[in-house]
Formats: sequence, structure tokens, C-alpha cells
Amino acid sequence: MTEKLTDEAYARAALTYLAEPADRWLGRLLRLHGAAATLDAIKTGRLPGHHATKPTARGAMKAAMERWQVRLPGLPAPQEVLAFRESGIRVITPDDPEWPGQLADLGDDQPYALWLRGNADLRFSCLRSVAIVGSRAATAYGSYVAAEFAASLAARGLAVVSGGAFGIDAAAHRGALGADGVTIAVLACGVDVPYPAAHAELFDAIAAQGVLASEWPPGQHVSRLRFLVRNRVIAALATGTLVVEAAQRSGALNTARHARDLHRRLMAVPGPVTSDLSAGCHQVIREWQGTLVTSAAEVIEHLSPVGVPLVAEAGTGAGAGPSGRRAAPAVLPRDLLDLESARVLDAMPRRGGMGTVRVAQRAGLAPATTATLLGQLATGGFIERCDEGWRLRHSCP
Amino acid sequence: MTEKLTDEAYARAALTYLAEPADRWLGRLLRLHGAAATLDAIKTGRLPGHHATKPTARGAMKAAMERWQVRLPGLPAPQEVLAFRESGIRVITPDDPEWPGQLADLGDDQPYALWLRGNADLRFSCLRSVAIVGSRAATAYGSYVAAEFAASLAARGLAVVSGGAFGIDAAAHRGALGADGVTIAVLACGVDVPYPAAHAELFDAIAAQGVLASEWPPGQHVSRLRFLVRNRVIAALATGTLVVEAAQRSGALNTARHARDLHRRLMAVPGPVTSDLSAGCHQVIREWQGTLVTSAAEVIEHLSPVGVPLVAEAGTGAGAGPSGRRAAPAVLPRDLLDLESARVLDAMPRRGGMGTVRVAQRAGLAPATTATLLGQLATGGFIERCDEGWRLRHSCP
Repeated sequence: MTEKLTDEAYARAALTYLAEPADRWLGRLLRLHGAAATLDAIKTGRLPGHHATKPTARGAMKAAMERWQVRLPGLPAPQEVLAFRESGIRVITPDDPEWPGQLADLGDDQPYALWLRGNADLRFSCLRSVAIVGSRAATAYGSYVAAEFAASLAARGLAVVSGGAFGIDAAAHRGALGADGVTIAVLACGVDVPYPAAHAELFDAIAAQGVLASEWPPGQHVSRLRFLVRNRVIAALATGTLVVEAAQRSGALNTARHARDLHRRLMAVPGPVTSDLSAGCHQVIREWQGTLVTSAAEVIEHLSPVGVPLVAEAGTGAGAGPSGRRAAPAVLPRDLLDLESARVLDAMPRRGGMGTVRVAQRAGLAPATTATLLGQLATGGFIERCDEGWRLRHSCP
Repeated sequence: MTEKLTDEAYARAALTYLAEPADRWLGRLLRLHGAAATLDAIKTGRLPGHHATKPTARGAMKAAMERWQVRLPGLPAPQEVLAFRESGIRVITPDDPEWPGQLADLGDDQPYALWLRGNADLRFSCLRSVAIVGSRAATAYGSYVAAEFAASLAARGLAVVSGGAFGIDAAAHRGALGADGVTIAVLACGVDVPYPAAHAELFDAIAAQGVLASEWPPGQHVSRLRFLVRNRVIAALATGTLVVEAAQRSGALNTARHARDLHRRLMAVPGPVTSDLSAGCHQVIREWQGTLVTSAAEVIEHLSPVGVPLVAEAGTGAGAGPSGRRAAPAVLPRDLLDLESARVLDAMPRRGGMGTVRVAQRAGLAPATTATLLGQLATGGFIERCDEGWRLRHSCP
């Protein structure tokens, strides 16, 4: 995101205060008129541009407007949105370099904006990622498998996406963290709200090494419906979704269904047929054509497009691909960067972080240009955010 | 089988003494010349009919002849073969009504003959059957699942085919027996040889309620190679093969491979990915397109041809099909029998068994005709063998 909020960016951030995510009417207005005009319409009560709509649709839209207007008193000013940065919270929108493009697969249900807390670059992390989901009431077997798979996948450079809940989610996050990998928790509350409370430290650890993401602004609390609507974002962000342990009709299967509907790779870990918590996994394999996987190597094999190894090489701790053959880097090597990007990358310090203005000075480029290029380099996996601004990634290609 | 051995039947029984099963050269001679001529050729050392064969093939055939001739001194006379009936052992060949036609799928590797001990009709039993195979060193989980699945399948009228070994095999046989079902043990030794010795009582129970089958004549002992060659018969006899627990590169996977190559339905029970004994099952699902099954109902669903319920109704204890709908009988009702067969069936006593001659007298048909019709009725599932001769099946359609 840029140092100053554009009108569109502010309007999208503001809309996360006014409407619950995946509100079809809002998604439609955003697609037709953009965020600033939509926000203005909610404030003034006048719909932008009078399109030929059926009376019933006009009635529903009017009801939606009233629903959103109820929350107008809680709307923050642009400087208040920016002020969250002091608490390490940033908001990104589809115009940001850090916005994961694959969210567009959600169509009108795409998030209006995402609130983030943490050092990892969301877009880059999600380029090679797997969602690990499952039951809150996981068995020892499920927790063990989730942690083992997450650690192996993280060690091979894949980001582990999950929902921050007890059970399988927590085991997956912890497994990735333990392998010094990147993990992403997509929350159903504000990124500053520790829910469950027992996970406050876990969320801080995720923020330090990965990123917390939410469609709800800071301070917002969870609800049953919010968990369900959140699941589509987990499925959309990740290249594939792995169900480790899930009862039939569980929330994890809801995420799995989203993954299937979004044409993401769907996988499940088998377990004893005598365990109710493996019944959902077997259902995914039997009825939804999910792939049975028994190891992290099989997950990677299934996620990799034919002939395009998903696993990068340098410094990720894995060395070789799943079947022992060495995998080619999945991102562009620095030699292929354009001249200005290469200058920005050369200007980065070997160790530690640096702010945008200082990088611009060293690179001899305008700060605005430098900011854009830094965002692109982050997206490409060359650099990442840190407390001081930006730093080189250890696994820089 | 008839009360007297034909030349062909005797020759086939004799060949089980001379050659190991699945001897391609013998299979070829049988196909080209029949068993009696082949046996004669082995005895005289002269090949029947001089076909245009390559010199190398002629050399190999000569070596095979010498190999078979070595065992000529052990050859029993026809009356010796018939005398096994006194110990409850019969031998069947492709001309017998009890011969399972699906063995023809083995081509030249089809058994020369099968030695049987037990009351169930082999052909009828195999019409609706599932092979349950797995590791000797089964876990408590595997043994439990094998016994449960076998009991449910047997209670629904399916015969459970297995190999009589420790572990999964024994659990499957015992599960079927416990549900008063039919189970078939295909042995790699004579049907009078209790191997393993600890299974002597189990084999007697199988003979009382099902049938023991072997390609080797009475008195023969097991060997590693015999187990492997035996596996193709298990796979060929059953409608489908279910792997319950198997390490990778295990004998059970050898059976599974035969089932796949024979285009039988192949299924596997998943288990913990942390268990080496489930690794083979997961391999069957992942690499051999085996179907993951978690219950007996799913096995039946997978075995049933579309629109043709596999599960018969009357008296098998199940009542309804896997999904609750009532299943139509899979065999012809007695109303559709031809007149002579109906007369034989009517002549059968309501309770207990009866010999062929007495049935012929009651039906008013020649004993030879009656014997043939009794065999056909057994194949059709109307009657079964017993100590007194033949008796009505409880689940008679």
C-alpha cells in the first residue's frame, strides 16, 4: 500500500465497517461504480447512475443501503485508517501490489479490502501456499499430522494458510512456525482481536513470521456466520486446500467445498474408518474427488502444475523436490529484472530493513517510483516487509 | 462333479500332481489338446499333434515335459482320486457345474482343477463375493475392520474370500463365520493340510459353513512361490477385492494387482498415514485407482452393477440394500425353473439332506439326469451340498 490512502482505498476500507463481507448488493455496486462512488451513495442515500433495474431489485438495493447506513456513525476518517499503521495494522485493496490477484475468482464476493497484521507479504506468500483445515476437536493423530505436514510444507517454501482456531488450525500454524516458515491466519474478527484468547501469543508469533488477515476492521468480534463467510477467503487464497481431520457437516468441509467450487486443488488425509473425525476426509476423497495424500511430498506433487515445480530452491531448507529431483525456482531470478527494479534491489541492505525513502535515495529513483517497485519486488518474492520498512528475503531467488 | 470321473476330469486332477499351477506350457497344451491327451503325452513322452513350433519353443516344451514326468511316480489312479470323497474332499474341473466360470479370465493360467473341502457350492458362493485380503501382521485396527466388514458383507449374503493366513485373512474368515455367512479359503497347500497349524479348527469351521479350495492336491505343503501363484485365484474368484491393511510390497498388494489386471473391482480401507500397514491401502487408492471404502455398505455399492442390486433378500439377515431400499433377488426365482429342475427341487426335503438316487426316485427322473440338474440347482443357489448329499439353501430364492 502507498504512504497515503487514495479515495478508492479509503472507501474500500470504510466499506468493511459498513457491510458484512460477501454482500452481493455491495459487490455489484463496487463492480459497477467503484468504491468511492458507492461510499458516497451510502452516505447521501442516492444510488449512483440510474440503471434499468427491476422494481424488486431496486427494493432490495434500498434495503441494503439502509442496512449499511445504520453503521455510518462508526465510520473512521482516512487519517484514522492510516493511524492503524502505528499498531502494525495495514489495509490493502485490489489496487495494492500486495493484493492477492486470485481473490478475483470470488467474483462479486471478493473482499472489499483486507486488514493485515504481520511481516510477510500476503500476495507473495499465497503464490505458493496450501490451506490446512480441520476440526477444532482434533485427535492427537490429526494434530500430529497437521503439524508434521505444515512443518514439511513450510520448510519447502510453501505458506500455510489456516483459520487460527483450536485443533487442526493451531497445529498447522505452529508446525509452519516451528519450521521457520510463513503462515497466514485468516481470521473472522479484527486482526487485533485475539480469538480464541488462548491464541494471543500464537497470533503474535504469526504476525512476526507470517501475517494475520481479516475482512473485518480492527476491534470486530467473531460470530458463527462470520466463520462461514471467512472460509471462502481461506480457500481462495491458497493454491490448494488440505483437510486433515473433519467430522461430516463440519466447518472444514465448508472450506473444502469452497476450494472445490473455486477449482483449487482439494486434498484430504485419510484416517481410521472408525474415527468420526476422519469421516469428513473420506467424504472429500470419495464424493468430491479430493486427492488422498499421505505426506507433504504428495501435497507438493499434487499442487505443482505439470512441468512447473512449485518448490523454490535457495535457502528454504528443502534442497530437493518431493521425489529427490532438484526443482527449478518458481519465480524469476534477479537477472531477469528490469533495470529500475534491479537498481532498487541492489539498493537494499544485505542485512536488516530500510525505509522507502532511504532506498529511493540509494537507488537514485523518485520515492513514488521506488514505492511501486518495492511493492512489485515483494510480490515477486525478492523482499518482504519488516519493522524498518523492507528487507531482503532469505529465500530471495 | 459326477459320481464317476470322466477321462478329462481325471486327467485334470492328475495334472495337479504333475505340474505347479499357472505353468504356461501346460496351459497351452490343455487349450490345444485337452487334459486326457496332455496327460497321455506326458506319460508317453510324445507330444500330441505336431504343430509348427519354433525350435526354441520345442526345446522349452521338452524341458517342461521332463519337469512334469519327474512326478509321474506319485500319480494317483482314478479310484484313488474318487476315494478322497470319503474324507470330504472333491475335485472339480471346468466341465463341472460347480466350476466358477470367471476363472476363465485367467486364460492359460486358469487352474487345471480345484480341490475342495466344505459344504458350500463354490460357483454359487463366488457369484456374489468379495475377497478381503491384508497383512499377516495386522494391527488391532485392521483385524477389527476386517472382521466387521466381513460380518456385514456375509450377513448380506456375500461370500468372503480370503487366504486362510494369520492377521487380516483370519479376521475376515471369522467375521463371516460369526455372521453365519459363507466364507471361502483359497489355500496354497492341500485342503487337508492345516497351514498354519493354529488354524486347524478355523479350517474345519470354514469347511462346515463354507469351502476350502486349493489348486494343489491333498497332502501338499505351502511355499513362498505357491502363496504368490495362489493369489491370482483369490482375485479371480471374487467379484471385487478389498485390501484392509497392507504394507507396501506385500503379498496382499500382489492379490490387489491381480484383481486390477483382471478388471475386478478393487477397494481399500484407509487408515492412519502414520501406520506402515495402511501405506499399501493408500497406494491402492492413489496409484491403482482403487476405491476408498469406509463401510460394508460402500463395498456393496461399489460391487453392484448399476441397476442390478448384488444383495439378495430372503433370509440373509439384511433385509434391505445398502441405502435402505429393498433389493431385488439377484438369482432367478424358482417359478422360472424349467419343468424337470422344478420337479427335482420339489423332491428335495424341507429339512435335512438327501442323496441323489433318493431325489431321483422322488422326482421320477433318471439318476444321471437328476445328478446334472442337482448340480445346476446348486449353481443357481437353490440347494447346497451337505453330509447326506444335497439340501435346500436357507436363502433359497
